[in-house]
Amino acid sequence: MKADKIPEATIIRLSVYSRNLQHMEDIGVTKVSSQEIADAADGSSAQVRKDLAYFGEFGTRGVGYEVKHLNRNLKKILGLTKPRSVVIVGAGRLGKALTLYNGFGNRGFRILGIFDKDMSKVGEQIGDLTISPMYKLDEFIKKNEIQMGVITVPAAAAQETVDIMTRAGIKAILNFAPKNLNVSNDIKLRNVDLAVNMEVLSFYMGLDEREDGK
Amino acid sequence: MKADKIPEATIIRLSVYSRNLQHMEDIGVTKVSSQEIADAADGSSAQVRKDLAYFGEFGTRGVGYEVKHLNRNLKKILGLTKPRSVVIVGAGRLGKALTLYNGFGNRGFRILGIFDKDMSKVGEQIGDLTISPMYKLDEFIKKNEIQMGVITVPAAAAQETVDIMTRAGIKAILNFAPKNLNVSNDIKLRNVDLAVNMEVLSFYMGLDEREDGK
Repeated sequence: MKADKIPEATIIRLSVYSRNLQHMEDIGVTKVSSQEIADAADGSSAQVRKDLAYFGEFGTRGVGYEVKHLNRNLKKILGLTKPRSVVIVGAGRLGKALTLYNGFGNRGFRILGIFDKDMSKVGEQIGDLTISPMYKLDEFIKKNEIQMGVITVPAAAAQETVDIMTRAGIKAILNFAPKNLNVSNDIKLRNVDLAVNMEVLSFYMGLDEREDGK
Repeated sequence: MKADKIPEATIIRLSVYSRNLQHMEDIGVTKVSSQEIADAADGSSAQVRKDLAYFGEFGTRGVGYEVKHLNRNLKKILGLTKPRSVVIVGAGRLGKALTLYNGFGNRGFRILGIFDKDMSKVGEQIGDLTISPMYKLDEFIKKNEIQMGVITVPAAAAQETVDIMTRAGIKAILNFAPKNLNVSNDIKLRNVDLAVNMEVLSFYMGLDEREDGK
């Protein structure tokens, strides 16, 4: 498997396929065709076959795929066969919402801590967790061998948060702060900018409006 | 401009460029090079020039770009020159966080209403807004000519929310529910699955772990 040749869009789709396969597995479906996988993900069967082909042969021509077997393989590819430990930094509304978001736990992401530098928030209970002060972040990451960090601090505080996380040994960061962050090459970083998604929608709406002569 | 030939990744980058240009404009920067635009977006100058070339000639060779002029054009391309009206459906933690997220307002997205079918939430104040009951959603969209909807309801309630929104005349939907939704072709839909982002990170972490022989 040459990771640098696999489009990121393929990885995103594998994640969606796996989620849908999990649902099928949970309700007792045992066999599935590439067309059914495609339908559940709003894609094409050719795309499904192409995405899977990067990683091997998982099905039988004319028979389809065994749901459990395929999902186990997808989870393995996605690194989801063992739990991933996560901390969230920034206990604002988004940080709290993410701490309680059950879509993470479902997929093996264990949120073990939430941190904030605002001492008036420290000690507050968020589900099973208690908000901890920022000065304890470094030690917490090291002691618990935390692998992933989620950043929901304001833009101005994002880079220092990244620096603390990476020095302490975190390997991957999901950043919600509207800020381009510098990380060393061995750290995986993804930025989620919620306004960007709205702007992509706005772009396509604008095309229609121009066509309509509005 | 042939919209179907423009990669979505280009639109996403234009949104990022525009945000950075806005920042430059706000602090009084008047001229910028494609290299500086690239640096702020963590990209390459060749990519910046290619992205902009889909839409025309905005700079002068050897001189660069006028910040204000370029940003005005990018905002026009992104449909951001007039405000976009938005409703949020689902007043859970994520819905509340998004209602108060200032990254939307900054870019011209006006959140005019937040709705929930849980009557115990109705009447609660979220910033300047009051949570309204679901049965008022249809009328509210029509009366205020709302253009965009954000869905933060549980997966099981997402499709019915889409159906109400689209029947009432909404043109674009940003969906946070972990569910593949059916919409007619004239509706723009984007799905934001927060766990997918974590899984993409997990995939790349897994590659390193395999290399390390862990």
